[in-house]
Amino acid sequence: MTTGVRRRMGVEERKQQLIGVALELFSHRSPDEVSIDEIAAAAGISRPLVYHYFPGKQSLYEAALRRAADELAARFVEPPHGSLGARLLRVMGRFFDFVDDHGPGFAALMRGGPAVGSSTTNAMIDEVRQAAYEQILAHLEVAEPSARLELVVRSWVSLAESTALLWLDGRRVPRAELELQLVHDFSALLTVSAAYDEEMAELVIRILAGEPADGPFGDLVARLAALVPQVPAQRPA
Amino acid sequence: MTTGVRRRMGVEERKQQLIGVALELFSHRSPDEVSIDEIAAAAGISRPLVYHYFPGKQSLYEAALRRAADELAARFVEPPHGSLGARLLRVMGRFFDFVDDHGPGFAALMRGGPAVGSSTTNAMIDEVRQAAYEQILAHLEVAEPSARLELVVRSWVSLAESTALLWLDGRRVPRAELELQLVHDFSALLTVSAAYDEEMAELVIRILAGEPADGPFGDLVARLAALVPQVPAQRPA
Repeated sequence: MTTGVRRRMGVEERKQQLIGVALELFSHRSPDEVSIDEIAAAAGISRPLVYHYFPGKQSLYEAALRRAADELAARFVEPPHGSLGARLLRVMGRFFDFVDDHGPGFAALMRGGPAVGSSTTNAMIDEVRQAAYEQILAHLEVAEPSARLELVVRSWVSLAESTALLWLDGRRVPRAELELQLVHDFSALLTVSAAYDEEMAELVIRILAGEPADGPFGDLVARLAALVPQVPAQRPA
Repeated sequence: MTTGVRRRMGVEERKQQLIGVALELFSHRSPDEVSIDEIAAAAGISRPLVYHYFPGKQSLYEAALRRAADELAARFVEPPHGSLGARLLRVMGRFFDFVDDHGPGFAALMRGGPAVGSSTTNAMIDEVRQAAYEQILAHLEVAEPSARLELVVRSWVSLAESTALLWLDGRRVPRAELELQLVHDFSALLTVSAAYDEEMAELVIRILAGEPADGPFGDLVARLAALVPQVPAQRPA
């Protein structure tokens, strides 16, 4: 190995180390509160050397966010095995792991603080949403979604975001419960849409037919079936 | 009336006129694209005179947003008459009227563009969310919500926001359908939570018992009852 090669490796390694250190700091406190001095100290290098690799805090923040976004998008990838409910539940588990690991940074980013709401960061957030949306369509085995289906899936992705944000604010509901609830919310939003749209109804019937009675969807249907007869005015004749 | 009084009235009137003109412009294009020159021209006054009333575009933007936020919060106020489903449907109608009237400005604000994501604007957005949340609790006649109920109501408010934003992007689903869908989504999210929590189940049973069969909730239940038997694996024994 020549010195030249080693020096190039060093530059990339150093950048990756700085991104890792910055992501760790940006994850645990609002990015507004993290200074370049702290990042330099945590990386064990001088402040000017940080600027040698990244022209400013925003570029380092964006690089850290890039890594986090790629990591999060990868967590939505789930092999097409088992029931849809079980797949979604595994994805929600990994999503909440991520939110748990990067709590304050995730909250600051999604709530759009002054230092973070740039068009670059917004574009990265949209990329992750798009990755989640496409993964779900793939699991639904739908290649060309109708406008209604697109809306339901995208609004569920947004529901998962806001549920995670609300959870971070006090963590008063166990996260395992919310992971399951979001899987159920998915079927509920899909089913509401199916009540008024034939194409959506066909999709829901196809999905539910493949669900085992002891999976998340089957369990929900059984519980709802037990709940409905308790509602006097709504009892079917 | 003395001249002094008239002059003070003039100042306030002028400010209110500028806010109205600015809100109109900020509503129809992204605030980043609206210049002080345009606002001055639309108000029929000089650019320096605009600065006499508002030190800069951000302060005028915040004043316009203040008016819009108050207006939107007021639209959530609904008298406690009729079924909950009908009340929510009226509120959703007024909410979509607002979104329709202020489309591009609403989208730019909620998506947190560079010029708009200040802590002041974020605080105003949170105020409107809080107003919507409190109104819904009042209609549910719940004074001290559990953590689960709070989460369901707040996440539904966020679902209404994201559904409106998705609708603005192309308007490919009729808004009346989405207004009804959001009312149904509310009952669906509540019911999912009720399937696993006794307190929530009691609330849902109490709400649904008061709903007429021809209201939005009754209609949904009837349609779902027709849909469920078509699902082979989930058919009750």
